[in-house]
Amino acid sequence: MLDVRRDLTAITDEEVVALDAWWRASLYLTVGQIYLRDNVLLREPLRPEHIKPRLLGHWGTSPGLAFVYAHASRLIRETGDRAIYLAGPGHGGPALVAASWLEGSYTETYPRVTQDAEGLRRLCRQFSSPGGIPSHVSVTTPGSIHEGGELGYVLVHAFGAVMDNPDLLALAVVGDGEAETGPLEGSWKGISFLNPERDGAVLPVLHLNDAKISGPTVLGRKDRAEVRSLFEGHGYEVIEVEGSDLPGMHHRFAAALGGAWQRIREIQDDARSGAWTGARPRWPMIVLRTPKGWTGPDVVDGVQVGGTFRSHQVPLSGVRENPEHLARLESWLRSYRPDELFDDLGRPTTTAFGPHGAQRMSASPHANGGVLTRDLVLRDFRDYAVDVASPGVERAESTRRLGHLLRDVYSDNPDTFRLFCPDETNSNRLGDVFSVSDRAFMERVEPVDDHLSRHGRVMEVLSEHNCHGWLEGYTLTGRHGLFATYEAFAMVSASQTVQHSKWLEEARSLPWRAPVPSLNILLTSTAWRNDHNGFSHQGPGLIQVMLTHRGDVTRAYFPPDANCLLSVADHCLRSRSYVNLIVIDKQPQLQYLSMDEAIAHCAAGAGVWDWAGNDDGTAQPDIVLACAGDTPTLETVAAAQILRERVPQLRTRVVNVVDLMGLVRPRSHPHGMSDLFFSELFTDTADVVFAFHGFPGAIHQLVHGRPDADRFHVRGFIEEGTTTTPFDMTVLNKISRYHLVMDALNNARTTPRGAQELLGWCQDQLDLHHAYVREHLEDMPEISDWRVGSR
Amino acid sequence: MLDVRRDLTAITDEEVVALDAWWRASLYLTVGQIYLRDNVLLREPLRPEHIKPRLLGHWGTSPGLAFVYAHASRLIRETGDRAIYLAGPGHGGPALVAASWLEGSYTETYPRVTQDAEGLRRLCRQFSSPGGIPSHVSVTTPGSIHEGGELGYVLVHAFGAVMDNPDLLALAVVGDGEAETGPLEGSWKGISFLNPERDGAVLPVLHLNDAKISGPTVLGRKDRAEVRSLFEGHGYEVIEVEGSDLPGMHHRFAAALGGAWQRIREIQDDARSGAWTGARPRWPMIVLRTPKGWTGPDVVDGVQVGGTFRSHQVPLSGVRENPEHLARLESWLRSYRPDELFDDLGRPTTTAFGPHGAQRMSASPHANGGVLTRDLVLRDFRDYAVDVASPGVERAESTRRLGHLLRDVYSDNPDTFRLFCPDETNSNRLGDVFSVSDRAFMERVEPVDDHLSRHGRVMEVLSEHNCHGWLEGYTLTGRHGLFATYEAFAMVSASQTVQHSKWLEEARSLPWRAPVPSLNILLTSTAWRNDHNGFSHQGPGLIQVMLTHRGDVTRAYFPPDANCLLSVADHCLRSRSYVNLIVIDKQPQLQYLSMDEAIAHCAAGAGVWDWAGNDDGTAQPDIVLACAGDTPTLETVAAAQILRERVPQLRTRVVNVVDLMGLVRPRSHPHGMSDLFFSELFTDTADVVFAFHGFPGAIHQLVHGRPDADRFHVRGFIEEGTTTTPFDMTVLNKISRYHLVMDALNNARTTPRGAQELLGWCQDQLDLHHAYVREHLEDMPEISDWRVGSR
Repeated sequence: MLDVRRDLTAITDEEVVALDAWWRASLYLTVGQIYLRDNVLLREPLRPEHIKPRLLGHWGTSPGLAFVYAHASRLIRETGDRAIYLAGPGHGGPALVAASWLEGSYTETYPRVTQDAEGLRRLCRQFSSPGGIPSHVSVTTPGSIHEGGELGYVLVHAFGAVMDNPDLLALAVVGDGEAETGPLEGSWKGISFLNPERDGAVLPVLHLNDAKISGPTVLGRKDRAEVRSLFEGHGYEVIEVEGSDLPGMHHRFAAALGGAWQRIREIQDDARSGAWTGARPRWPMIVLRTPKGWTGPDVVDGVQVGGTFRSHQVPLSGVRENPEHLARLESWLRSYRPDELFDDLGRPTTTAFGPHGAQRMSASPHANGGVLTRDLVLRDFRDYAVDVASPGVERAESTRRLGHLLRDVYSDNPDTFRLFCPDETNSNRLGDVFSVSDRAFMERVEPVDDHLSRHGRVMEVLSEHNCHGWLEGYTLTGRHGLFATYEAFAMVSASQTVQHSKWLEEARSLPWRAPVPSLNILLTSTAWRNDHNGFSHQGPGLIQVMLTHRGDVTRAYFPPDANCLLSVADHCLRSRSYVNLIVIDKQPQLQYLSMDEAIAHCAAGAGVWDWAGNDDGTAQPDIVLACAGDTPTLETVAAAQILRERVPQLRTRVVNVVDLMGLVRPRSHPHGMSDLFFSELFTDTADVVFAFHGFPGAIHQLVHGRPDADRFHVRGFIEEGTTTTPFDMTVLNKISRYHLVMDALNNARTTPRGAQELLGWCQDQLDLHHAYVREHLEDMPEISDWRVGSR
Repeated sequence: MLDVRRDLTAITDEEVVALDAWWRASLYLTVGQIYLRDNVLLREPLRPEHIKPRLLGHWGTSPGLAFVYAHASRLIRETGDRAIYLAGPGHGGPALVAASWLEGSYTETYPRVTQDAEGLRRLCRQFSSPGGIPSHVSVTTPGSIHEGGELGYVLVHAFGAVMDNPDLLALAVVGDGEAETGPLEGSWKGISFLNPERDGAVLPVLHLNDAKISGPTVLGRKDRAEVRSLFEGHGYEVIEVEGSDLPGMHHRFAAALGGAWQRIREIQDDARSGAWTGARPRWPMIVLRTPKGWTGPDVVDGVQVGGTFRSHQVPLSGVRENPEHLARLESWLRSYRPDELFDDLGRPTTTAFGPHGAQRMSASPHANGGVLTRDLVLRDFRDYAVDVASPGVERAESTRRLGHLLRDVYSDNPDTFRLFCPDETNSNRLGDVFSVSDRAFMERVEPVDDHLSRHGRVMEVLSEHNCHGWLEGYTLTGRHGLFATYEAFAMVSASQTVQHSKWLEEARSLPWRAPVPSLNILLTSTAWRNDHNGFSHQGPGLIQVMLTHRGDVTRAYFPPDANCLLSVADHCLRSRSYVNLIVIDKQPQLQYLSMDEAIAHCAAGAGVWDWAGNDDGTAQPDIVLACAGDTPTLETVAAAQILRERVPQLRTRVVNVVDLMGLVRPRSHPHGMSDLFFSELFTDTADVVFAFHGFPGAIHQLVHGRPDADRFHVRGFIEEGTTTTPFDMTVLNKISRYHLVMDALNNARTTPRGAQELLGWCQDQLDLHHAYVREHLEDMPEISDWRVGSR
């Protein structure tokens, strides 16, 4: 790609003139978006009625964002390379919107925002206005795979985007505010997992303008030698550019960016030439220091605004009321010489600048990854089935079967699928993938290491933020993957799950955004089987978070066994634009359904398990025992067996739910069961004892509005846990088979003969259990006694 | 404190002998806890029945943890200084438990775990066994304020602990696995906010043993010069120690730790001498490289185990079945020469080593902060009241009143209260605190800065993880604080909220843990008023997360106005061991209650607002309009007014809920309203239209089990949002006054005259609104049309 005939670090004076004009145009449009509702070309003197009633937006970071964009555009045109642009300081949205408009992609995407005076007016009016677009880079921004709201994820998105995309360069601008967040600081290490032979490159531009909304930033005020040392420590070659002088800054930044660009291509050429030693390259990064609000007002009302936090948002705030501010705004706008930048019809005069077509960063297909998405090659998932001759007899590690499937997904999709996991692939029984791919690692590998190499494509890093964020970047650019994690610690990245759900929700209302592969999250090592790890490891919180999102995006599956897991996984891997949550533990567990039964069961989302109950198909069972999740299913099946054997007159129905969202009314979720099916499963009147994997409140809210929802008696995780046995976990949380039997008897339509005896027997069993625990604890320290006492 | 007569970097051979014995004792006990259930002193040959049935625990990190502990203990004894120990690699729990037992504090805390053979047996048996203690450092561990489950928070806890604790040293061991997490990487910058004059010191020991559970770590395998550069970049003076040779390592580490200790005291002496320039010191940190599983088995079954990830957990796994493994275990245990370490009765022979009393790190009162907690000095919150002559007439910024109160809390509690906020103190209208304290900042301060200095004690950093974690450390050591944050981005630190809730839940079952100040979280800039920022900023998710925790810890308040906010805040600031969530927006909002009314209302938790409804105290209103949260209250009051005016025959009752947990049944939450009070508010049969600030599912689950809960029709945030107006947000989410009126009419017990007309009028109002929006959008781009179309 690289035109080796030319030194990329050089820029001619003519190029500077063209580049500067484009930059000024984008600055003009940025100020215009923040302030103007009319007279956007300043064809007449600025008057208060031309100003928006409410001034919103972030000026401070925008000049730097546009500056980097302009220089990158020039290089793309020069080299023919492919790049995408990620704006970490995403509040500088107007700069990116302006860039897209100047490149023509905005008009292609939104035809009414024409590239003329009227389109300009629309462009300005829509910005941060009701019914318009947000003030930050968002789903609506062409060329973006990165929302600029919640800060911290620009580098993880960039690294995810370039994995298995050898020819893609992701230019990632990191703001010094964002650089203070934990997730961002933890993401510089992406280069320790990036293979220059197979992956593309991330070029971080740390844009230090010293301030955030009301004060300075740590990196902005740190000793410069420390900043350099920090990033050299992360493994980067640090290129520094600083200043505000023009055109000097254009020359210096062109040299910096061109140098970095050349260095990246050298690294890649070297890695791809066959001569590479395998050592992790020192990838370049740029530290760009420009004043906050560069080119904007300097001193306002006697207060220093330029170069300070006071430029962060709207530097001139009194424009409608204060004639002096209005005049300052007009002269500020005119300082960009709009008459040179737009012709009589308001068309930009800068169209000759920069790349064309799909090379424009605002029109990159990688930033609309759905258009590049290919279906995964998936073998028939039935090939991985567990033989189940009879339900509830044999045990298997269900996730190990999933591991077999994932192994072949890796084999058959050598550059479009990755597994992301915080260090627990083996622990989660998915280790079969290592028979076809190693763990990715670009730091020193030693002989004692296990399936670890630079060629590896299994992503293990002890950071849920990196795993989640890489997968987001990977899927948003059109590839497929799975994030497998400890259930409790999925909360670490819960805000990413939330924000990605919001992204997908928004994207659905934008027809030009093609559907992307779903974000698949496997929650394993669940609360019920973290008995040995104790209370901090016991928490099904992410389920609760997922339920709050829109039905068109949220999916939550609770396969009870291996065959259901395989069916669900196959479905999720084929799906688009969902967040799929799959919850199942990794420990050996009873298997219930043959593959054919599992397929039918998962397709329906829920079903009556005739073999487990004894209502013989009556429409009026005395009690319904429902369950969702592997451990609750085990306890429910056991409870039903006790009831069958001890009070056979009681007509007990067992319902297993795989697709949790089926419980919701159809108007609230597309998977919501029809009223008819819901009634077929749960009747309209029988009491339902529902054993749920997560918090009981989840079921309470899901069935609200269903016929007589008060009849649902839910058992689930009630935040009781400690270091104990798996069965004791069910007792502590009152979801054990004995609790379920007692619930059934206490709520059944009729009181069968023997009910009192059975209630007594259940209590005896629990007492025996408690006694056993107490005996076992007899020589335990007093802390244990306190716990027993609190039961 | 420092004994300046002695060079702390030197250690005599006699001291090494004593220290090594203590270390060996702790190693012996660590191995014993992982493996042994009997014969724990090896008084007879080891047999399979002495081995636990299930082997759990993390050996790999433990030797290093104990090594650091031993050396620190020696220095504490030497210097008389006060220190606490935070174990980031908290899975090395047995090492810390062993230390506490050797120091005697374990027996003081748990008298049955005596310092003799029988106590030793209990100590070993309880570890990671049902009914015992978790395998990691936990709430049960004396001397710990840090749970070793979810990784990433050791430094934030350490920094929080030493703020305003000038004489405290927090020794924070950071594991190289944990060092990969985002929150941890983001927390090194704590020194940019630490004032050596007023705060204590954190001494980080980065313990690189190269591996996590199944592979190497980035820092473990990085080039050493890069590691040094990284931490020098963060601002530390890096002291490196490496090896496994003994006693050489004792001498080298003593020199390193003693040197760091001396350096810290020099920094502090300098800062407190009055001669300090104010420049941020280069605080020392130690990089300690020891083999994973140091002193443990080297090669097992022909595979290299020592020094690799295979030592992470249980290095000899087949001990009960494999005689060779059993023999290896016995010789491993005997390698520590237990006969020297324990006398005939099993009492440790090392009691002369280390400090005594409260100077033992395992007995530090700072690690049981409740014992040091003093009540905040709080002025009468009524002094900050808004005058409310008549409900719903005047507007005020409620959080600004809270700012007044917090200003005085700062003044009156100069070393026991801090506000933590990601850069938004002013934006959240709490800026009055700056009249008495600056923002804390230890990097370069410039004249343009606003209320920023090293003397500042208002903590602003653009990192929810740091804010939340610092506050945790601050409160767990007995001081008070508030974390104020954007509602949507509270999800960033949601997992910290979860884990801290779990800590407090566990602590309640341990009588020796004195109650600590509550963790107070103010959610402001809420979904309803983030109209201009758009969808990514709209999310009341943390409320949903909080609801899953135990009633003895979780509190959630929705003050509708300033006076209620003041009353609630006063209550929260006085409380202990809760997580208090307070939700209120920062924008100007209607005020309803006089201070006296507010106090009564908040004390009851909820109440009928007679002035808003027209049921005239009847026990049988036709409809109940309930609300919780400021915007829902506004819409509800407006809806009630419409109903009063247009269908006066309809007996409408208005109920406002401040204390959300009051809705829960009393058996599930101590704030749960009695059945009687619940019926007084909501009746047992009238339909309730409930307008809620958060997701509707929250109310659905809270009222489940209340009489005829199906009659609750909940409106709330249904994940609909965009860049729009505040009122349009309520329309989009179907919680507007018009929706509430229609809900009321559609669900009322009787159909009043004029109901049809009013329904039509409401629909007209909504149509007018939509038309207005459409008209306003007439010249907006098509993206807006799509959105309108989707309404």
